[in-house]
Amino acid sequence: MRGKIALEEAWNIPDAASLGGFQPGSLAPKGVIGGDLGANLLDVHGTRLQQMNENDVEFMVLSLVSMGPQGVTDKDGAEKLARIANDKLSEEVMKNPSRFAGLCSLSMHNPVQASAELRRCWDELKGFVGVILNDFQSFGEDGNGMIFYDDPAYDVFWQTADELRAPVYIHPRSATPEITDRMWKGREHLAFSALGYANRVNMHLLGIITAGVLDRFPNLKLVVGHMGEHIPYDLYRIDHKLNRARFPSMQMRKDRLVRDYFGTQVFITTSGHFSTPALLCAISEIGVDACMFSIDYPFESIPNASVWWDEHVEQTINARDLVKMGRGNALKVFARLTEAPHELRGKTVTECAVGGLKESENEVEFGLYNKDWSRRLHRQ
Amino acid sequence: MRGKIALEEAWNIPDAASLGGFQPGSLAPKGVIGGDLGANLLDVHGTRLQQMNENDVEFMVLSLVSMGPQGVTDKDGAEKLARIANDKLSEEVMKNPSRFAGLCSLSMHNPVQASAELRRCWDELKGFVGVILNDFQSFGEDGNGMIFYDDPAYDVFWQTADELRAPVYIHPRSATPEITDRMWKGREHLAFSALGYANRVNMHLLGIITAGVLDRFPNLKLVVGHMGEHIPYDLYRIDHKLNRARFPSMQMRKDRLVRDYFGTQVFITTSGHFSTPALLCAISEIGVDACMFSIDYPFESIPNASVWWDEHVEQTINARDLVKMGRGNALKVFARLTEAPHELRGKTVTECAVGGLKESENEVEFGLYNKDWSRRLHRQ
Amino acid sequence: MRGKIALEEAWNIPDAASLGGFQPGSLAPKGVIGGDLGANLLDVHGTRLQQMNENDVEFMVLSLVSMGPQGVTDKDGAEKLARIANDKLSEEVMKNPSRFAGLCSLSMHNPVQASAELRRCWDELKGFVGVILNDFQSFGEDGNGMIFYDDPAYDVFWQTADELRAPVYIHPRSATPEITDRMWKGREHLAFSALGYANRVNMHLLGIITAGVLDRFPNLKLVVGHMGEHIPYDLYRIDHKLNRARFPSMQMRKDRLVRDYFGTQVFITTSGHFSTPALLCAISEIGVDACMFSIDYPFESIPNASVWWDEHVEQTINARDLVKMGRGNALKVFARLTEAPHELRGKTVTECAVGGLKESENEVEFGLYNKDWSRRLHRQ
Amino acid sequence: MRGKIALEEAWNIPDAASLGGFQPGSLAPKGVIGGDLGANLLDVHGTRLQQMNENDVEFMVLSLVSMGPQGVTDKDGAEKLARIANDKLSEEVMKNPSRFAGLCSLSMHNPVQASAELRRCWDELKGFVGVILNDFQSFGEDGNGMIFYDDPAYDVFWQTADELRAPVYIHPRSATPEITDRMWKGREHLAFSALGYANRVNMHLLGIITAGVLDRFPNLKLVVGHMGEHIPYDLYRIDHKLNRARFPSMQMRKDRLVRDYFGTQVFITTSGHFSTPALLCAISEIGVDACMFSIDYPFESIPNASVWWDEHVEQTINARDLVKMGRGNALKVFARLTEAPHELRGKTVTECAVGGLKESENEVEFGLYNKDWSRRLHRQ
Repeated sequence: MRGKIALEEAWNIPDAASLGGFQPGSLAPKGVIGGDLGANLLDVHGTRLQQMNENDVEFMVLSLVSMGPQGVTDKDGAEKLARIANDKLSEEVMKNPSRFAGLCSLSMHNPVQASAELRRCWDELKGFVGVILNDFQSFGEDGNGMIFYDDPAYDVFWQTADELRAPVYIHPRSATPEITDRMWKGREHLAFSALGYANRVNMHLLGIITAGVLDRFPNLKLVVGHMGEHIPYDLYRIDHKLNRARFPSMQMRKDRLVRDYFGTQVFITTSGHFSTPALLCAISEIGVDACMFSIDYPFESIPNASVWWDEHVEQTINARDLVKMGRGNALKVFARLTEAPHELRGKTVTECAVGGLKESENEVEFGLYNKDWSRRLHRQ
Repeated sequence: MRGKIALEEAWNIPDAASLGGFQPGSLAPKGVIGGDLGANLLDVHGTRLQQMNENDVEFMVLSLVSMGPQGVTDKDGAEKLARIANDKLSEEVMKNPSRFAGLCSLSMHNPVQASAELRRCWDELKGFVGVILNDFQSFGEDGNGMIFYDDPAYDVFWQTADELRAPVYIHPRSATPEITDRMWKGREHLAFSALGYANRVNMHLLGIITAGVLDRFPNLKLVVGHMGEHIPYDLYRIDHKLNRARFPSMQMRKDRLVRDYFGTQVFITTSGHFSTPALLCAISEIGVDACMFSIDYPFESIPNASVWWDEHVEQTINARDLVKMGRGNALKVFARLTEAPHELRGKTVTECAVGGLKESENEVEFGLYNKDWSRRLHRQ
Repeated sequence: MRGKIALEEAWNIPDAASLGGFQPGSLAPKGVIGGDLGANLLDVHGTRLQQMNENDVEFMVLSLVSMGPQGVTDKDGAEKLARIANDKLSEEVMKNPSRFAGLCSLSMHNPVQASAELRRCWDELKGFVGVILNDFQSFGEDGNGMIFYDDPAYDVFWQTADELRAPVYIHPRSATPEITDRMWKGREHLAFSALGYANRVNMHLLGIITAGVLDRFPNLKLVVGHMGEHIPYDLYRIDHKLNRARFPSMQMRKDRLVRDYFGTQVFITTSGHFSTPALLCAISEIGVDACMFSIDYPFESIPNASVWWDEHVEQTINARDLVKMGRGNALKVFARLTEAPHELRGKTVTECAVGGLKESENEVEFGLYNKDWSRRLHRQ
Repeated sequence: MRGKIALEEAWNIPDAASLGGFQPGSLAPKGVIGGDLGANLLDVHGTRLQQMNENDVEFMVLSLVSMGPQGVTDKDGAEKLARIANDKLSEEVMKNPSRFAGLCSLSMHNPVQASAELRRCWDELKGFVGVILNDFQSFGEDGNGMIFYDDPAYDVFWQTADELRAPVYIHPRSATPEITDRMWKGREHLAFSALGYANRVNMHLLGIITAGVLDRFPNLKLVVGHMGEHIPYDLYRIDHKLNRARFPSMQMRKDRLVRDYFGTQVFITTSGHFSTPALLCAISEIGVDACMFSIDYPFESIPNASVWWDEHVEQTINARDLVKMGRGNALKVFARLTEAPHELRGKTVTECAVGGLKESENEVEFGLYNKDWSRRLHRQ
């Protein structure tokens, strides 16, 4: 599918380490996944763009790699990292705004300051189309403090995002030292993207929803990656078990279910979760309108995500819905993508080259998973 | 789901028998399906409306019961039946245009006359929102002649439908005596709605599509019932086997597949086919935009179709897509429904009472298939 | 998936034309699909076997290409063709019985003679594991006569198949001249495998089932290809519309539905219908036990079917069910495959190389649709 | 469906509170879910059996309500609770072993003692068919100690379960005070069955699998409820992210994926998660063989679970697979159910009254979601 837009795509600043940001280490040993993770994070206009071109990814929305400011326990340090990253990301994006946009990073130590930095990015910098928050904000000397944004004190921040129509991408992060020590010791392989990320961030997202934040701020839109961090599959049980008599203090509107917010205020992406059965389940439970393509580069491979989407999903989902999820929905959720300097617009299935036979290739037959009739073709 | 719109709903004129129209006989023995078929077909504002009210069917688009003029081999007789039925249907519909609209019947012996009658219905009568054609037009003294509308001579008719933006519902009908004798003798139980209807009308629909009619008339919309008359399940094979080198004379655009027309120019309804797995398959292959709720009353039961939709489909498909298929899509395909005298408008999921908890009923828990916690409830 | 068994695979005798059998013509213009159709049909141990090897197709059950004896209107000619083809097929199969078996062809002009020929194949020849019938038997000078095997006179044949435990593959065929003339003129592209084949053979299969043949012969097993010839998608409507009060003379057991026979006495294959959504629908409606892999070579490409199965279906269906459908079920339905001279046995998922990581390839990561992390691989 | 077997069904001993066991409190306010939770837990042969009879639940496998011994931080106290509960459960079960069996509770402070108690239940008591473990074992005065059974020290326990062929049901439990304080304060509604249970127990299950326990003990079978505690939906991502180069110390076989264990050594139940789309996703990812019906009584309603299964799932899944999941698989996983004193056996679809038309009810038509043709029936 041509014209794909990818939404959860990581990037890093050169001086991240000294600022308390992400530095690739044992997390991703060189040579294992995608070569040099550190270099790939820094790169925008080289390898990354080339691979986008080779894989029909028209556009990437970039964000500072997790944990970003959320991992900086010191308030001033977190704010400084956010500011520097935002300045730098704007600069990078504006070198090629027809192919890139950014999500601004925010320190969440103080919601008033977070709002001010969001306004600065939105009004004074260029190229920002939303916000990224990497789960809870760490604080405290031992790094075990956790700030969650379902606290009423954070309504001032949500109000700003609502007012500016800035969608907020809720991204996972690592656990605190204390939690890691208690729960993940000896099974560190599960602590990160395989399981722990989702297990933590789904609580935070549901905390925000059930705290009534989306009711108080009806223009606010939240996005989560990784096929919804386990939630779409469990929506029946989640809504069933949030019994209103048992939990009278739950703030969410009494006439609403968690599932009601998906597709209007909550959206998921496919980042790092290229499973067709999971996508089909999500489509049943929350609908095509609530699902969007993403990759999670460079933690995931652009070609791998794209082969899944362009071949596997395309063979399972009708063309119109494929284009909605691969492009159209992103333009509705991140509406600034349709404005200057990006000025993206919707594309038809034909413009995205899905459906139909290709006259240019003298195609005479539909449905050839293997274009050569007689010889088994292998990917090379 | 409140606000459902049903699109393939049969009705009859009192003097049908004398005009060559449908008379209920062995087809539906009294007492078997829905009581008195003959009376139910004649009724609009009595039992039918009452059952609509009891089942949240807000609106029905009515059409003369099959075969209508298509079963009248005599040209004058067919035209007379169409004219009388159209006058009468307009009259019935205009008694309650906020609940009913009509599809006009046409003799298809002569495409010019068919166009003229369509124009008469569209411009001079009130309450028509589309056309119904019951498969091929019979002709000849022995009743074995068959006219198909993929013949180029019928472009004049398609042009009129295109110009007037009148969607055309392609409905099945019985086989000719000759075909019946050759193929269905001894297995009459399969000749009608169980199998034969679909086996014939799917050929006609695909004939029209592959003849390029939809390419020449891009505003034309076709609708078929019964979950698409076998086609969505077989779209891969249909497109795969319509090899362009093998069938060079096939008129459809060379860069198009049959599947490409679904959701933009071809739509299906659920009439008489209340299967969740089939609907899920159709949604994968052709998308929610291409699927619409319908019943096929009085050959089907209004409560049965509605229980399927309101409970079973609602438990399997997200609320937004349920409302699109149950109502919203109908307003796009049959756009006249949004104009006077019907003036229907879209409804939100909340207005349709899907999703959410019902505050009025002090509901505290989602997901109760059986509202009583301890006692097995049975339908009464 | 290694160890795949394919069940609907065509083959031809050299002197087919002179015997009234199939001769490739306009049906498959050279160069369009798979090169030289005529040569591919004749070949067993050359190109065919080589492509099987290249695509992990361990075994093929061969059958004389349609229409075979069913297309020979002359009784003696049909019987002669069957006899010659069976002798020849046994000979071919026995050259390599660990890779090939056969279905015997039968003239169906006379059910007693058909039974005798089936016994001859079963008892005197080697390598037969079932029967193929190409829809109805033509007869009469004009070629318009049609014999269907739901006629009670054919119970003698079904009894033989039941007694011998010989499964019967019901394969489609072309229409008679008369039906072709009436229904398909001007839309010949639809008359064959795109639509007409299924539209005819599904009636015959349902005729046999609803005539009670499977009730009278409980060991009898029927197989149909092409993902069930439209039937799985329509099972709700078929069973719903076969109302027992309306059709009192229908012979099928009064406490049975058509759907009840699938998985125990009726089975489908994927031949020529490589659609994942259709397969998912069939799995819901009739279950994994009722579905089996097949190709339809040489009308379909071995590599194309295999890429679909080995990559696309494998990514959507769990490994155990993949192996059941790709191999295990075939050994249950065609039980003679487990006996001499074929002596096939079940294989584990590991033996079939599905699931798991390949230690031999130093695989470190699951889920790579594109094995190269950074470069988009294309099939070559 | 008649003959259903339910596997995760809670029960309590009268003196639970004094022994450190479960006492219903704010968890389930009286009158909200199913009346008097405390009384329903104590009851076996009264209301429970009556509701089983009314809902075609033939058999229940009972287990001491969570947290059981896992919540008792004191070693001696935990062992005492287990012993008393096991004695009592055996006694209850043996009052009606054709309808009930039990899972034995174990203190997991010491794996050798756990093995001994398991042997005692298996060899000396009657009516036990497996084990239940409520996630991690608490220990320490502050209740914050957590023992996980993927520790190599617990191999001695797994060895016993393997030797005895005793399947182990891994059930969720509440978090420790420390974790609760850090993560769930202010969002307690999410801490339990809506989200927290799954978020914790899925880590433990995956810890055991990835520690290689199932490789070392190939006869060992694990069962988890609640539709797999989020895992089936995320299997792609879990396996994808457990990169073998990144996590060289992970003990699971290098040629295996987590998904490979489902259906042979790991099984899920539907307890408390009555969602058709989730079940369809699980069936795709792990297969019908890996899925089993369960309720989670009295935290869930027997009629509610049964209406979902008997009507909704039955309309979406073919009869044979319904019976496998509703009964047959349980007899394979909990093989002791087929022995004295329970002596359960497999049942056909007909014996389970799924599929078919009911002659006894003079049924003439399949597919009536609403048995009355004309009147909307409501559950009463």
